[in-house]
Formats: sequence, structure tokens, C-alpha cells
Amino acid sequence: MKSAGQRLEDVGEDALVRTLTSRLPLERGVIVGAGDDCAVLRGRRKGWYQLFKADCVVEGVHYKPSTPPVRVGWKAMARSLSDFAAMGGAPCYAVITLVLPARRSVAYARALYGGLEKAAREYSVSIVGGETSRSSRKGEAMISVALTGEVARARCVLRSGGRAGDALYVTGRLGGAVKSGRHLRFAPRIAEGAWLAAGFPLHAMMDLSDGLAKDLPRLAAASGTGFELELDRLPRNRGCSERQALGEGEDYELLFALSPRSGAKLENEWGKAFPELRLTRIGRLVRSKAAGRGLQGGWEHFSKGEVKREKGEARRAQ
Amino acid sequence: MKSAGQRLEDVGEDALVRTLTSRLPLERGVIVGAGDDCAVLRGRRKGWYQLFKADCVVEGVHYKPSTPPVRVGWKAMARSLSDFAAMGGAPCYAVITLVLPARRSVAYARALYGGLEKAAREYSVSIVGGETSRSSRKGEAMISVALTGEVARARCVLRSGGRAGDALYVTGRLGGAVKSGRHLRFAPRIAEGAWLAAGFPLHAMMDLSDGLAKDLPRLAAASGTGFELELDRLPRNRGCSERQALGEGEDYELLFALSPRSGAKLENEWGKAFPELRLTRIGRLVRSKAAGRGLQGGWEHFSKGEVKREKGEARRAQ
Repeated sequence: MKSAGQRLEDVGEDALVRTLTSRLPLERGVIVGAGDDCAVLRGRRKGWYQLFKADCVVEGVHYKPSTPPVRVGWKAMARSLSDFAAMGGAPCYAVITLVLPARRSVAYARALYGGLEKAAREYSVSIVGGETSRSSRKGEAMISVALTGEVARARCVLRSGGRAGDALYVTGRLGGAVKSGRHLRFAPRIAEGAWLAAGFPLHAMMDLSDGLAKDLPRLAAASGTGFELELDRLPRNRGCSERQALGEGEDYELLFALSPRSGAKLENEWGKAFPELRLTRIGRLVRSKAAGRGLQGGWEHFSKGEVKREKGEARRAQ
Repeated sequence: MKSAGQRLEDVGEDALVRTLTSRLPLERGVIVGAGDDCAVLRGRRKGWYQLFKADCVVEGVHYKPSTPPVRVGWKAMARSLSDFAAMGGAPCYAVITLVLPARRSVAYARALYGGLEKAAREYSVSIVGGETSRSSRKGEAMISVALTGEVARARCVLRSGGRAGDALYVTGRLGGAVKSGRHLRFAPRIAEGAWLAAGFPLHAMMDLSDGLAKDLPRLAAASGTGFELELDRLPRNRGCSERQALGEGEDYELLFALSPRSGAKLENEWGKAFPELRLTRIGRLVRSKAAGRGLQGGWEHFSKGEVKREKGEARRAQ
């Protein structure tokens, strides 16, 4: 990204984050800094890493003003939890930043916290701090959830370890998350992520928040590979087109890569461990970094929704 | 706070936070949850606690739209750092949540990050993650900074340990922070907090963000005491009235309580360690919880600024 005269809506989120964080020095104790689902830090116990992550939801962007606040709270907590799932990690402590318009009711704030607490309890997280502020005059609501937790060193899965030839798998089904309301009540794949990381030599993993069309190229780029998708295998939610399954985002399913030699054992054991959750091999990582470049769609944070075809192309090419 | 039909602007921030966090269960490993400057958690090393905190700045509330973004970034990081100072702790890792209008320039985002990085470098903090989102249509900017760090168990100072008879001290001078622009470039008292906690048996400490008139009653309430202020000793910044020094807030100085027997040694050694920073004994904690109730002023997050006299009274009495 060359020109600083551009607006944020003219550049992709990836390019923005890169330009903001690429100069950050990596200090002692930092195993992985900005760029993966969580930061990976030297751990509290020998053989363990500490994980650290913050994520947010913004009214009018991640949910509607009319969304029930208990759902907003659930989603805010679940989004950060999903990033822990993507590392094979266990979340532990949360601190909440709550920005609300001063005219919002106390009942609204309570219900929102109720949703945060419900998700925290469900996933054994302790909320240990809460900061509140009003938003400005015309303001909107915003909730940021920062989480710390840990993962055994041997089980920590990054985005960047994928190898050419790896099989690509995705949990669940994709598409239609917003229309169905699933984006407000999804179950972060904490148990599944930990089970995978404990039992199988995963090379790379991430959660799908912006759509496979946007997230898979990220995993491949971090791993220094390209990818091939078998589109006819794509596990779509009922009523969803291929384009919707690829591009709508907010699925919060896990995408991971491992040696194809482990595939049969994985598929067999998965079916016993999680009989109600689909697991699908959707393609593979390949040597040519150009492979997969044609994939289009996905959620772009600073434009108004899905990326337009031409823009998407231009962004990936920059 | 009885009625949930109230608006946030009708209740104080303290009452809101209490109603939101009072039901939170304290899990294993949580030494102090919501309510102090930082959460205190079981530490990475034997004899150490981990500290965890998030704080935010909101455009139009904590700074003006015209404020240079590098100052905004500094303030966002420095506010969280100040909470670490208040525990006698050392900050270590930060993750940033950045919410910006899509029409804001990339240069603005870069400059803002420059301010965050400058403060991080100055205080030996590593920024290990950054999440960005656009705000909604009419949106405003918001920056949340989550910090983890540590403090030696023996040196961790809470708000709640003050005892009747303790002398109350404050660092620096109070008032005029917004008018002078000091709220955008203040130096968090990390070194001073650590020095105090290491060398003196402090009973309680906090940082002054909402004004002494608001924060001292918090410290006293947490300690189960009242307080007496010697108003004529109040260290005011030049041109500030007593009311401004008490109520304007954003001073980010340290307020602490310790046995009056340690006072002479403290004052003597402070002068050698920090010759350019004033330290003032401003009063004492007393047994009667009613003492000090008359103190008025201070920043109220959900109303439009300083608390009105009557309202302030009503809030403290509820």
C-alpha cells in the first residue's frame, strides 16, 4: 500500500493491518505477534504458551440496532472465543470494554452483559474486568472482548504451518449465517479445535469469520502456498448458493490443513467424536502461490459488505 | 440501583459497573476481579501475579475529532498503562482494537498507531495484536487497549487495603489537564508506582482519572473507610481553582494511602528519587464512612461532564 492519502474504504483490512503492524518489534517472550488468530506468548507453565486476543462488535456493522442485546453479548464473547478455537487453545480470562450511548437503558446494558456472561460460563471463561464509556453525541454501541488463555506448546496451531500437498478441511456448513441469525448464536468450536490439535498433526488452522473466499487465501498466504478448492464438495447451508457459502462470512467454523496421510483416520474418528457436526475435505494446499488467486468474494471490513469482483481482484494482486 | 427502566445517563458509572459485574463468579486463579484498577490473576512465575486490563478512548468523549491522531494513540495506550502504575505493576503485552469510520484516511490510522507504538516503546510494552473494524454509517472512532503484565505478589497494591489513620498522598499537581492538553501527553506513573510499591508498605493505591473528588471516595469505599481532605494542601496546577483540581479529572496521577509512621521517610526519599515530581500529603483515611461524603465534583462518564452538585450527592447516597 503506497499512498497514505487513501481512505480506509479504499484499501483492504489485510493491507491496513499490515501497514499498521509490520513495523512492530517482536520483543522477548513473543512467539507470534499480530497476524494470527491470537498472539502467542511465553507461557505461565513450562511447556505451555499464553494466548492473547481482543475482538469487537460494532452496532450497525456486526449487528443491527434492533438485535436483542443478549445476542449481541453472546456474539461479542463468542467471536474472541472462536479465535482461541483456531489455535487449539483454552480461553481463561476476559476483560470487557463496553461503549454505549448515554440514552441507552440500564436494562439494555444488563441484558448485553447477560449474553457475555452466558457465553463466558458456557466456555469456562471468567470475566475479570469491565470498563464502560458512553459514546459521543450521535454515538453507537461497541463491545470489545479481550481474552487470555493458554495452549500446550506441542498443540498450538498457527495459520502459517500449511505445506503444499496438505488436505484442507472445514467444520460444519457455510453460508447464510446472517440471514438465519446464526451469526448471533453460533457455538465457537473450542472443543473441536482442542480435540483436533491434541489428536492430529495439524499444520495450520484458522476460524472462518470473513468467508472462506477471504480467509482461505489468508491461510495459504501465511503458509507460503497456493490452494485448490473442490467447489462441488463445499458444505453449504440449506438454501445457500456457492457464492453465498464462499463469501458471506460469519460462519465461525474451523478451516485447517494437515497431511493427506492423516485424512482417513481423522474422518473416521471425527464421526465418533462429533457425530452431529459435519467435517468436509474441501481441497488442498499447492506449491504455486498463484493457484487460487481467482477466488472471489468475502467480507471486507472497511467497504460496505462483500467485496466486488474487480475490487477483490485488485486487492489480492496488490 | 433498583429500576432497570433508567437510562445510563441517569445512573453513575460506578452504579452501572456494580450492577453489571456484581454477579460475576470468581473462578479459581482470580485474586481480584472487576472493581480495581486491574484484574489480579494467578501469575506465570511463583511469587508473581498476572495483571489484566482494558481501557478505551472514544472520539468526542475522551478527545476531539480535531485532536492529532498521534496524541490520541498515546492517550489510549497511556490510560491503560496508568492502571498498571496504580497496582505497582509492570505492563508487558498489548492488543489493540481500532474502530474507525471507513472514510477516515490511512494516514490518520497510521499516525494513531504511531502514537500507540511510541507510548508502548517508552514503557517497554510489546503490541502483539491489532483488530480493526469500521464504525457504522455516522460512526466515530474508538480505540481500546488491553494490557497484560505482572507484579510481584508482595508488591501488589489494591484499592481496598486502606486503613483508618492512613496518610493520603498524591503525586504531581491536579486540574487543568484538558485545557492544557496534558490529558493527551501525560506520562503514566509506572516508575513511580513500582518504586513506591517496592520501597514502602502501601496500603492502597489508584490512579486519578475521573478527578480526586470522584476517585478518592472510591478508594475510601473500597477500603471500608471515610476520609478527610486538607483542601489547603491540594497541589493545584497553575491557574486552577480548588474546584477544578478536585473535579476536572484526567490527571493520571497516583493517589495512595500508607501508615503515617512511614510518611517522613517517604517524603525524604521521594525527593531524591523523583526531584521533579511533587508529592503531597493531602489528608487521611478515617474510621467514619460518612466522613468525606460532602466532597463534590468529578467526571461522570454517562452524563455530559462534571457531575452537578445535587446529582453527585444523590449518587453517592444511593
